[in-house]
Amino acid sequence: MTIDRKKIRWNGWGWVDGPDPIGDRADAVWDWLGNRLGLHPLPETPAKKLDEIELPKIALGDAQLGKLRDLTAADRVMTDDYERAFHARGKGYFDLVALRAGHLDTAPDAVVYPETADEILALLQYCDAESIALIPYGGGSSVVGGVTALKSSNQCAAVTLDVSLMDKVLDIDEEAHLARIQAGVYGPHLEQQLGERGFTLGHYPQSFEFSTLGGWIAHRGAGQQSNKFGKAEKWFVGATLATPGGFWTTESFPASAVGPQLNSLIVGSEGTLGIITEATVKIQKAPECKDYRGYLFHQFDQGAKAIREIVQEGVPTAMLRLSDADEAFFFTVMRTIGKDPEPKVRFCIMIVGVEASKAEVERSVERTRAIVERNDGVHMGERLGEGWYEGRFAGPYIRDPMLDRGLVVETLETSTAWSNLLNLHEVMTKTLEDAIGANAISPEAKSIVMAHVSHAYVDGASLYFTFLFPRDLDRPAEQFGAIKHTACEALLANGGTISHHHGVGTDHAPYLEREKGPVGTAVLRSIRTQIDPKGTLNPGKLLA
Amino acid sequence: MTIDRKKIRWNGWGWVDGPDPIGDRADAVWDWLGNRLGLHPLPETPAKKLDEIELPKIALGDAQLGKLRDLTAADRVMTDDYERAFHARGKGYFDLVALRAGHLDTAPDAVVYPETADEILALLQYCDAESIALIPYGGGSSVVGGVTALKSSNQCAAVTLDVSLMDKVLDIDEEAHLARIQAGVYGPHLEQQLGERGFTLGHYPQSFEFSTLGGWIAHRGAGQQSNKFGKAEKWFVGATLATPGGFWTTESFPASAVGPQLNSLIVGSEGTLGIITEATVKIQKAPECKDYRGYLFHQFDQGAKAIREIVQEGVPTAMLRLSDADEAFFFTVMRTIGKDPEPKVRFCIMIVGVEASKAEVERSVERTRAIVERNDGVHMGERLGEGWYEGRFAGPYIRDPMLDRGLVVETLETSTAWSNLLNLHEVMTKTLEDAIGANAISPEAKSIVMAHVSHAYVDGASLYFTFLFPRDLDRPAEQFGAIKHTACEALLANGGTISHHHGVGTDHAPYLEREKGPVGTAVLRSIRTQIDPKGTLNPGKLLA
Repeated sequence: MTIDRKKIRWNGWGWVDGPDPIGDRADAVWDWLGNRLGLHPLPETPAKKLDEIELPKIALGDAQLGKLRDLTAADRVMTDDYERAFHARGKGYFDLVALRAGHLDTAPDAVVYPETADEILALLQYCDAESIALIPYGGGSSVVGGVTALKSSNQCAAVTLDVSLMDKVLDIDEEAHLARIQAGVYGPHLEQQLGERGFTLGHYPQSFEFSTLGGWIAHRGAGQQSNKFGKAEKWFVGATLATPGGFWTTESFPASAVGPQLNSLIVGSEGTLGIITEATVKIQKAPECKDYRGYLFHQFDQGAKAIREIVQEGVPTAMLRLSDADEAFFFTVMRTIGKDPEPKVRFCIMIVGVEASKAEVERSVERTRAIVERNDGVHMGERLGEGWYEGRFAGPYIRDPMLDRGLVVETLETSTAWSNLLNLHEVMTKTLEDAIGANAISPEAKSIVMAHVSHAYVDGASLYFTFLFPRDLDRPAEQFGAIKHTACEALLANGGTISHHHGVGTDHAPYLEREKGPVGTAVLRSIRTQIDPKGTLNPGKLLA
Repeated sequence: MTIDRKKIRWNGWGWVDGPDPIGDRADAVWDWLGNRLGLHPLPETPAKKLDEIELPKIALGDAQLGKLRDLTAADRVMTDDYERAFHARGKGYFDLVALRAGHLDTAPDAVVYPETADEILALLQYCDAESIALIPYGGGSSVVGGVTALKSSNQCAAVTLDVSLMDKVLDIDEEAHLARIQAGVYGPHLEQQLGERGFTLGHYPQSFEFSTLGGWIAHRGAGQQSNKFGKAEKWFVGATLATPGGFWTTESFPASAVGPQLNSLIVGSEGTLGIITEATVKIQKAPECKDYRGYLFHQFDQGAKAIREIVQEGVPTAMLRLSDADEAFFFTVMRTIGKDPEPKVRFCIMIVGVEASKAEVERSVERTRAIVERNDGVHMGERLGEGWYEGRFAGPYIRDPMLDRGLVVETLETSTAWSNLLNLHEVMTKTLEDAIGANAISPEAKSIVMAHVSHAYVDGASLYFTFLFPRDLDRPAEQFGAIKHTACEALLANGGTISHHHGVGTDHAPYLEREKGPVGTAVLRSIRTQIDPKGTLNPGKLLA
């Protein structure tokens, strides 16, 4: 495995010895947050330790475990508590609430680390024959319940297939800018291998360090620089998947008219249509130059219009990100409180990244500045952009300390057409505030709801909401579940997709049919039944 | 109907009074071709006239015809010979051979022109209940048998649904650059409606005047300017389809992670997964400036490398087209023989189109010239480009006169990765020459095989072959079928897709499973069965 699982937090985000975003400013931070959220002082609510947790009894017999070892190797079939707990859940709020409380009512009965595609196929076909659920697992960074070790009522056990040993770039076609890569490779190791040949995939989600190529494809992810490098469906060319009926190698032509493009079924299949063993992806020459800089706007609509015009006029950028005034204010406070006074004025902050040749960067910055200025924005220079860039993977580290202090912090992301973006921003902000209020732990409890535009397209953009509020310590999942449900209903009613890049997993499965419609859902179900009639692959995900 | 069917040739290409590309140069043209193809003089082989053709007896009873009229209107249900013959087949070689010989062993028993989506759904559900095959028909320009009026052995009749009355742009979202459009609109009428608001779809296939939006989506077409405007799968956002189980409205978000993107099933569905009633598509501001110019290369590989570098370096172009030396020579001869002597020297011709603002055009031309020149190409100026642009829809008119003179002229198109492009060009040229030779009508008979790169991508490009040879007048379909089969096998064996933008229809259906693989084909079949269990929709197409 390319990352020692003991170096990653089993019940939280990131490296065990990862950055502490609060540090010696703790008193000031908790004081400010307690006041702001109407819960002062914030309580201490630490997570349970691994040895305080009782895991479900292993449901696999010795013969079954022996067979798993025969199909792989004795030292690649794990049944210890750490491996089972580590692989039990992902990194969403429901996951963390369960892990922190020690409610591991579900966990894999074994974790298997295959080294080859043939091993994956053999394991899958064995599990299929034995009615054992098989859960594909890459980095486990799903925030929608995508890796929960579930089994169906007709299945005797659940095995998690951790593919992180399959981490090689198999082939680089320098002429066609294509690479064939094993699906279990983590972001940094992937980019290192491509970088040695002067190439990049350019897919840098916030989870970059803790997620894998196969996961990015399976959940239809987006990197922060998707304007240049594309969402997974854009850079994905083709794959080989292990399915109960054998390997499935999909088309990988530059373009074709031979019926529907079935590759689109792979992106977003979330392990339910096969286990991706390797993928062919579009790679690019590593850019000569990276430029990240900031701009300020008084109004969110001014910034949104600037982004729309930048995209629609074809100005080449790698990233366009616009924080609303509440988000810009909040993260400034989180970074500075205890050192600087609370900011007096509020602005929306836009970060623009360009990754290209020096000449193209210069031209893009010039065109961007002109569009920003005609929309009453102000150029703030590179420092703001570089600050964002340096901390681009650090954001999630703030969540665990907040969970330790009686708070909920969660996100929700969507996309919609430009003509609906401002409306959806307003509706969802109010919906979240109202839903949090309706599920508040006391009349004094308050919320913070904020958002940014994270990915921009010619026809629309994504909106990424972050919200905080005091947690119901007795019924945390129920409290959040009610809020989440209200928010999803509001997305469905107001022209937003249920998820722009987090995926479906268990958390969004109840809403998939509403978004796809009855015919679309029936189609998806028929595909799944065709490929996996016994429902061996990642049960309980995608389709409710 | 937006084009009077009597003004279009029922058994050939284009307008009845369309351009005559040969005109008063006929003697010189036929003399040159006859010498070149080893068949001198070329025989006169005129097509049969409509009144010489016997159509199959109408298999619908009066009650059924009455019901079709009830569901639409009396004057929109046609059973006359012209309508039946016009809609019997498309415009591929097999179609023309059958139509010209008067072998109409299949024809629709009625042609119905719906005016609304509700009428389409009612007609479909009626046909489904009555076991009548329903063939969706837009412009009928399929060259792969996509509109042949087939019925299955369990179906009592075949009705063709001509959707060309559904021709309105329903809504333009100027902010999101999206348009919602009825599927039956022809290219010119669509662009006229968008143009009134300053927009364009930019989808200009060679069939532009005679093909419809729904057809472009259903067969996964590509316009000549696909570098800027995209192949259908790129500009297609979402659709409403009539299916036997009711309407299916697919997702239409800028981006999403809610499971697989089912829209990709619509593009390339060829009428088998529902009848597209309307579609939402990405539109662009009409470009300020169009620049088409030509470049010459001694060698095909030099031009191909230039195209690859232009695309991979992100130089914005609308079109990159490279004719090999044989094609450039042939079309020069066809245009000039009888006026000018045969050219003495052979070159590959590259036409580059840029459609953008004046400043962007200038910059693109400058960058393109630099890339061309470092690949030993020569800039020839705008005249060559403008000449191509003026005749961009005229090419197919040369086919019917050649069919009248004992020849076959057909095309075959594919795509592959850059690293395989030169190899595939060579292999397919030789394969076609050998296969034509093996099926020649005499030892003296020769062939002309030529090709161009028609569409370019970062990872590869399409190759479009045109070939001519003396026709076997007794067994024309068998002769061509043998050649076509050999060519398709060679594509499968050498990394080319069976079709880049023509589609599958009947002609490529036998090869789909080989390209998609057994799992992919089973998936496609399960989707079709889910949506259309009785096989009412366009039987015999896509899946063999």
